[in-house]
Amino acid sequence: MLKDLKEQVYQANMALPDYGLVVFTWGNVSGIDREKELIVIKPSGVDYKDLTPDKMVVVDFDGKIVEGDLKPSSDTATHIELYKHFKDIKGVVHTHSPWAVSFAQAGIDIPAAGTTHADYFYGDIPVTRPMKKDEIETEYEKQTGTVIIETFEERQINPNDMPGVLVNDHGPFTWGSSPDNAVHNSVVLEQVAEMTYHGMQLNREGVRMDQHLLDKHFLRKHGKDAYYGQK
Amino acid sequence: MLKDLKEQVYQANMALPDYGLVVFTWGNVSGIDREKELIVIKPSGVDYKDLTPDKMVVVDFDGKIVEGDLKPSSDTATHIELYKHFKDIKGVVHTHSPWAVSFAQAGIDIPAAGTTHADYFYGDIPVTRPMKKDEIETEYEKQTGTVIIETFEERQINPNDMPGVLVNDHGPFTWGSSPDNAVHNSVVLEQVAEMTYHGMQLNREGVRMDQHLLDKHFLRKHGKDAYYGQK
Amino acid sequence: MLKDLKEQVYQANMALPDYGLVVFTWGNVSGIDREKELIVIKPSGVDYKDLTPDKMVVVDFDGKIVEGDLKPSSDTATHIELYKHFKDIKGVVHTHSPWAVSFAQAGIDIPAAGTTHADYFYGDIPVTRPMKKDEIETEYEKQTGTVIIETFEERQINPNDMPGVLVNDHGPFTWGSSPDNAVHNSVVLEQVAEMTYHGMQLNREGVRMDQHLLDKHFLRKHGKDAYYGQK
Amino acid sequence: MLKDLKEQVYQANMALPDYGLVVFTWGNVSGIDREKELIVIKPSGVDYKDLTPDKMVVVDFDGKIVEGDLKPSSDTATHIELYKHFKDIKGVVHTHSPWAVSFAQAGIDIPAAGTTHADYFYGDIPVTRPMKKDEIETEYEKQTGTVIIETFEERQINPNDMPGVLVNDHGPFTWGSSPDNAVHNSVVLEQVAEMTYHGMQLNREGVRMDQHLLDKHFLRKHGKDAYYGQK
Repeated sequence: MLKDLKEQVYQANMALPDYGLVVFTWGNVSGIDREKELIVIKPSGVDYKDLTPDKMVVVDFDGKIVEGDLKPSSDTATHIELYKHFKDIKGVVHTHSPWAVSFAQAGIDIPAAGTTHADYFYGDIPVTRPMKKDEIETEYEKQTGTVIIETFEERQINPNDMPGVLVNDHGPFTWGSSPDNAVHNSVVLEQVAEMTYHGMQLNREGVRMDQHLLDKHFLRKHGKDAYYGQK
Repeated sequence: MLKDLKEQVYQANMALPDYGLVVFTWGNVSGIDREKELIVIKPSGVDYKDLTPDKMVVVDFDGKIVEGDLKPSSDTATHIELYKHFKDIKGVVHTHSPWAVSFAQAGIDIPAAGTTHADYFYGDIPVTRPMKKDEIETEYEKQTGTVIIETFEERQINPNDMPGVLVNDHGPFTWGSSPDNAVHNSVVLEQVAEMTYHGMQLNREGVRMDQHLLDKHFLRKHGKDAYYGQK
Repeated sequence: MLKDLKEQVYQANMALPDYGLVVFTWGNVSGIDREKELIVIKPSGVDYKDLTPDKMVVVDFDGKIVEGDLKPSSDTATHIELYKHFKDIKGVVHTHSPWAVSFAQAGIDIPAAGTTHADYFYGDIPVTRPMKKDEIETEYEKQTGTVIIETFEERQINPNDMPGVLVNDHGPFTWGSSPDNAVHNSVVLEQVAEMTYHGMQLNREGVRMDQHLLDKHFLRKHGKDAYYGQK
Repeated sequence: MLKDLKEQVYQANMALPDYGLVVFTWGNVSGIDREKELIVIKPSGVDYKDLTPDKMVVVDFDGKIVEGDLKPSSDTATHIELYKHFKDIKGVVHTHSPWAVSFAQAGIDIPAAGTTHADYFYGDIPVTRPMKKDEIETEYEKQTGTVIIETFEERQINPNDMPGVLVNDHGPFTWGSSPDNAVHNSVVLEQVAEMTYHGMQLNREGVRMDQHLLDKHFLRKHGKDAYYGQK
C-alpha cells in the first residue's frame, strides 16, 4: 500500500546524508496520506545504506503499525502530533544537523537576520521551552510534539509561514508540503543557522532585519502575489 | 543570438555550485554585450543541474526579454542597474555565500585585513545602508542596485578597484571583466570574509592592514605596473 | 593468530580517515581478546594507505610484542592501561580530531548540552588534569592512562556510561564494546564537541541540559529498558 | 637539469590543492639543490591543473633564471632569503591557508597549546612585525624574507625546531627537509591554527601548554632520542 508515498519518503530520507544533515542514523523523514490518515516513516535505527522503499513503516494516528516488519522511528509520536495539529503539512523531518542543534542547545531562537531566512521563514525560528520532568518521563516523544504546538499557539505563529522549530536542548524539526519540501526546509534552516551564528558573533545586537524587508522577501516567494521562479 | 556569451554565462553559473558558493538556486550570473547593450542572465529558480546554455535569457536595459522562453532571474533589475552605472564591468554575480552573508547580516564592512584581500579589493568591502520601506515596496530589485551605486558614490569608491559589495541583510554582489572573472571575485570575497571573520575574533581592533601594504599588493596585480603572473 | 580481531582492528583504523577524524597518521585503534589478554593495535607512524590486516601488531599486557614485524603505536601503553582498568571495554581509539582537541587544549569538560550527547555520554565528558613533570618524563604513555583512570575514579564516573575522555592539552580517547563501536563513539564525541562549542559561544551559561532529559535519552538507548532501534 | 628535484617540487605543488591549502594559484613550493645552489620553484600565476614538472623554473641565489620559459613565482625572492639564512632547509612552501592567515591578519603568534603542535613546532609559531613603508616599496619580496629572519634572530628561535612562520597581515611560510616535508608542515600548521583558534575562544588565557609536555612531544619525534614511528 501507499507505494508512491513510500518511494517519496525513502528518497527524502536518502537526501539527508547527501545534504550533510545527518551522521549515522540521526534523522528521519515521514510523509502523510491525508485522506487515509496514514503516515509513512523511516524505521528506527536502520542505516541509510540499508534502507529501501519497502522498509518504510506505515502507521496510523494512534501510532499503530498498519504495515511493515520493522519498528518505526522512535520519534514517530512527535511526527503524529505535528500532522494532527498542523493540518496542511504533508512531510516532516527531524535531524541533529549541527548548526541548528547549536541554537537548540543554547536555547535561543534563530533571529530573522536576512533575506535567505526571510525567503522561507516568516520571523524568528522559535525554540521551545525546556520540557518538564513529567513530560519527559511519560510519553516523551508525544509530549515533544505537544510542546512544539504549544510554542506555536502561545506565540501565535502560523506553521504554514514558519516551517520549522528548534526543540530545546535537542534539535530541529521541519515540515512542508511534501517529504521533499520538508527536507528542503531542513537544508535552509541549517544554512540560516550557520550564517546567523556568525553574524551574531560580529554584531550580536545588530543582526535582526527590518520588518518590511522580511515581509517583502517572504511574500515574494509565498502567497498569491509571489513572483519568484517560473510561473 | 549571443551564442558565445550564453555559453560563458552558462559556464559561470555552473561554477557557482562547484565552488560551494550556492545551495539550491541561490545565485545567478550575468554577462553583457556592451555594443548591443544586451544582458544574458540565468533564468529564475531553475536548478543548476537543469541549466543549459539555451536556457539563458537575453534582456535589454529596460528589463524586457529579447530572447528566451523562461523568466529571467528575479534579481535581473539589480544586474541592469550595475551595468548601467559601472560602465567597465562585463559580468555580475549574486550569491548567498555563507561568510559574505554573515557580514551582510551583521551590517558591517569587511575590513581590509591582509594581502589576500589587497590582491583583489582596494580597501574595505562596503556594506550598503539598510533599504527604506518605500525602496523595498516599489521596484525593490532596481532599488537594490540604486543603493549599491549610492554607496560607491558617497564613499567615493571606484568600482573597478572594488569589484564587490555586501547588500545589507542580504548578501554579496561581485562583478568583473567577464562573467568568469566576476565568479572569481565572488570566490575571493567568500575566502576573505572567512579569514577576516576569524581574525576579528582573535583581535577585533588589530585586523586592519597598513595602507602601504594594501597599495603594494593591489598595484602588484592591477594597473600599469603590475608584475604578478605571466607577462 | 587472532585473524578476525586483526581484520576488525584494521577496518576500524581505516574508518578514521573516512570519518575525517585524522590527518596523516594521527590516530590509532586497538582491540582486545579478553580471554587471551592480547591486544591488537595499529603499527606506529604507518600511513593508512599502507596498512593491511597483517601489519597489525599483537602485544600482551606488559606491552611485549607477541606477533608482528613492526613497532606498535607509540600510544600502546595508554591503551593497555585502559584495558586493564576498564574491564568491559573491547576497543580503544585515540585521535587528534579537531573539535575534541579544541576542548582538550582549553582544558575544559564538554558539558552535556543536548540529546545527541545524552544518547551516548551520560554526563559531561571529562578532561584530565595536566600531567606532572615526572609523569611526563617517566613512562609518559602509561601515565597518560593512569591519569585517565584517576579522573574516572575521583569523579566517580562509570566508564561504561562514559565511553570517552579528553587528555589535557592532548586529545580524545574513546572506547566501546568493539573496535568499531569505539570508532563510533569517537565520531559522536567530535560532533558533540562541535555543536557544544557553538552553543557555548551563543549562551555560555545556558548550554547545560536538565538532568531528567539526560537520564531519559541515555536510558532510552542503554540499559535494560532501552527501546531505540530494532529489537 | 635537476629532473628529480623538478619532479619533487611539482608533486609538492600539486599536493597543496589536494590538502585544501590553496584556491586558485595562491601558493607555491620550492626545493633546493644545496650543492649547486640552485632553486626549483613554481611559475607565477599558473593554474595547478596546467602545471607539469617541465614548467618548474630554476633560479640561482641572485634570482636569475637559469632554466625555464616562464617567470618564477612572485614570492621567489622570499624563498631565496630563507634558503640563504636557514642553511639546513631543503624545501619552502607559501600558502594563504585560511586558519593560518587568520592568525597572521590578527598579528598574533599561534601559542603552543597541545601535543599536535608540540610534535612539530617547538614553541609558539611566531608572527613577524608589520613591515615598514620603505621595506614594502623597495624589494618587497626580499624584505619579506629579511623580516622573517630578523624575527628568528631576535627571538632566538632555531628554524630547525620551528619550521614555519606567519608573515604579518599576509600568511604562512613553512619549510623542511624536502619540498614534501615542507608541505607536511604546512598542513600541520593549518590544523594547529584551527584547533588553537577554537581553544582560545573557549579559554583564552588557558590554552598555553606546560613546557615539559612541549619538550616531551617535540623530542619524542625529533633529535637523537626520538622513538616515534618505525626504526
